[in-house]
Amino acid sequence: MGEFDLIERYFKSAAKTHGRVDLGIGDDCALISPAPGMQLAISSDMLVEGRHFLSTVSPEALGHKALAVNLSDLAACGAQPLGFTLALAMPRVDASWLQGFSEGLLRLADAHGCALVGGDTTAGPLNICITVFGQVPSGQALLRSGAQAGDDIYVSGSPGQARLALEAFRGSISLPEAAFAQMRERMERPQPRVALGLALRGIASSCIDVSDGLLGDLRHILKASGTGADIQLSAIDSIANNAVFMPTNGHFSQEFGRQMVLAGGDDYELLFTAPQAQREAVRRAAIAAQVPVTRIGSVTAQPELRLLEADGALLENSFASFDHFKS
Amino acid sequence: MGEFDLIERYFKSAAKTHGRVDLGIGDDCALISPAPGMQLAISSDMLVEGRHFLSTVSPEALGHKALAVNLSDLAACGAQPLGFTLALAMPRVDASWLQGFSEGLLRLADAHGCALVGGDTTAGPLNICITVFGQVPSGQALLRSGAQAGDDIYVSGSPGQARLALEAFRGSISLPEAAFAQMRERMERPQPRVALGLALRGIASSCIDVSDGLLGDLRHILKASGTGADIQLSAIDSIANNAVFMPTNGHFSQEFGRQMVLAGGDDYELLFTAPQAQREAVRRAAIAAQVPVTRIGSVTAQPELRLLEADGALLENSFASFDHFKS
Repeated sequence: MGEFDLIERYFKSAAKTHGRVDLGIGDDCALISPAPGMQLAISSDMLVEGRHFLSTVSPEALGHKALAVNLSDLAACGAQPLGFTLALAMPRVDASWLQGFSEGLLRLADAHGCALVGGDTTAGPLNICITVFGQVPSGQALLRSGAQAGDDIYVSGSPGQARLALEAFRGSISLPEAAFAQMRERMERPQPRVALGLALRGIASSCIDVSDGLLGDLRHILKASGTGADIQLSAIDSIANNAVFMPTNGHFSQEFGRQMVLAGGDDYELLFTAPQAQREAVRRAAIAAQVPVTRIGSVTAQPELRLLEADGALLENSFASFDHFKS
Repeated sequence: MGEFDLIERYFKSAAKTHGRVDLGIGDDCALISPAPGMQLAISSDMLVEGRHFLSTVSPEALGHKALAVNLSDLAACGAQPLGFTLALAMPRVDASWLQGFSEGLLRLADAHGCALVGGDTTAGPLNICITVFGQVPSGQALLRSGAQAGDDIYVSGSPGQARLALEAFRGSISLPEAAFAQMRERMERPQPRVALGLALRGIASSCIDVSDGLLGDLRHILKASGTGADIQLSAIDSIANNAVFMPTNGHFSQEFGRQMVLAGGDDYELLFTAPQAQREAVRRAAIAAQVPVTRIGSVTAQPELRLLEADGALLENSFASFDHFKS
């Protein structure tokens, strides 16, 4: 298998060691020193072909995405990336695949100052496991549990686009070429909202990254916070019309647009809450991070999740239908 | 798949949160605070069926081993375990498998004060990826690179036993029942030498854990340190005769015994060097850690690895033959 050669050849030389990494690849352990007063934030994700990516994805895009979904977890906590480990199982050593994969991986890593500090390679069915480490000032991490009744609810970017690309791949919809290219980029190369997460420290009351779908992940916040939520469907329609489907406006039904935005998944946007008094601060954080943010509803004391039409009418059984939308 | 239920049911409730873990399973990230003046030591290993374990292994033993091989990396650095993440791909949700696996995993974790802080579960070919975190006083980690000419070379425990069990499983040798049970235990439930690693801080000049085979891993130390080594075959024979093959003394040839000890692999013993002036300190560390330690040779300035018979004769081409022994 040439495990050691593999690491040295494709991963070691290109990985940059950043400030807080004392020892990177090449010993039994990596050594990291978080700055004084910092907590270490840790997250781990495993990607498997067919479930997390399609066989059609380029190795470079896959390298990007494998790290991006992990950086997205750090972003959701408001943590600054420090480093990551990579464990990789491959059916065989494929030089061109490794070249592309490591390029996509390390380009994103360098863009976020996140050093590859160690890992493991082995023969086996393709499997990518990344564990990422970041630091956050003690007590300032954004958690799921801080939402309060009366808080606003926001989502960043354009959730729904990744799912739209997936539907196009599956052949269940067709998209104009330019629109497909844009949606595919969102699916294959999600941009973790690290800068936004950092900017929201001290402002957001709770935060999560949208991986399973907006409503499903919102329920994690509501459960952890012991609250409910009212979601304004006019805001969801606005995301669908203006952001998600801009190139193909009018192509799809309102219902389909709402499904994409609310239950699409694989978005890696930040879903967060903040007190109403922080509206101006949220606006400035979004500008500083150069990420659009949409206010989509508010937190309620009553622990239920309601979807409301513009006239205040309740969409019946609405969460259940979106919850089971995912295949 | 019921990913969230799985974690809560089998892993969350049983995982104990220890002193330095501020936030465990259930948010986007776990939060850990290493003590002031400490570096964080990190290691990641991926286990795949057929390569790292046999399909005959019990889920409980597999849970033990998956964490043990990671704790062994911390031991080799002299780091105190803090916590770990688990990423798990499974073909299907198998309740009895998960029950056994989590029991074996968490029993060893608790024995070492190492908390399960997060992870991921997904559908896919069986794959276990663990990333472990420990802490070590800044600058005191045991590295591969510190060996000096004149240092003694030591190995803990009884390397070779795991390989002997593997050969018995393969049918290439037969073992008496009691001996097979003992060797199988070494293969399936290796005991990470955490206490010995901690006791060797400030004493050992370099350290590695033996996973690929004693000679192969020794070469990592020699390469990192820019040194060579003379290994005394009488010490290797002594390990083979007295420790490895005690129940079956006389069963196997001297050559076979040496192959088992020097190139067996999967041992998870500590291989380390220490200045001659530290012999008494090493002896006391071994007693404190309750792990037998054998002095097997010495570090040389000349960067080659030599195997010497009791009369000083050099075993010709010796490393090469052991290096290619592994299947």
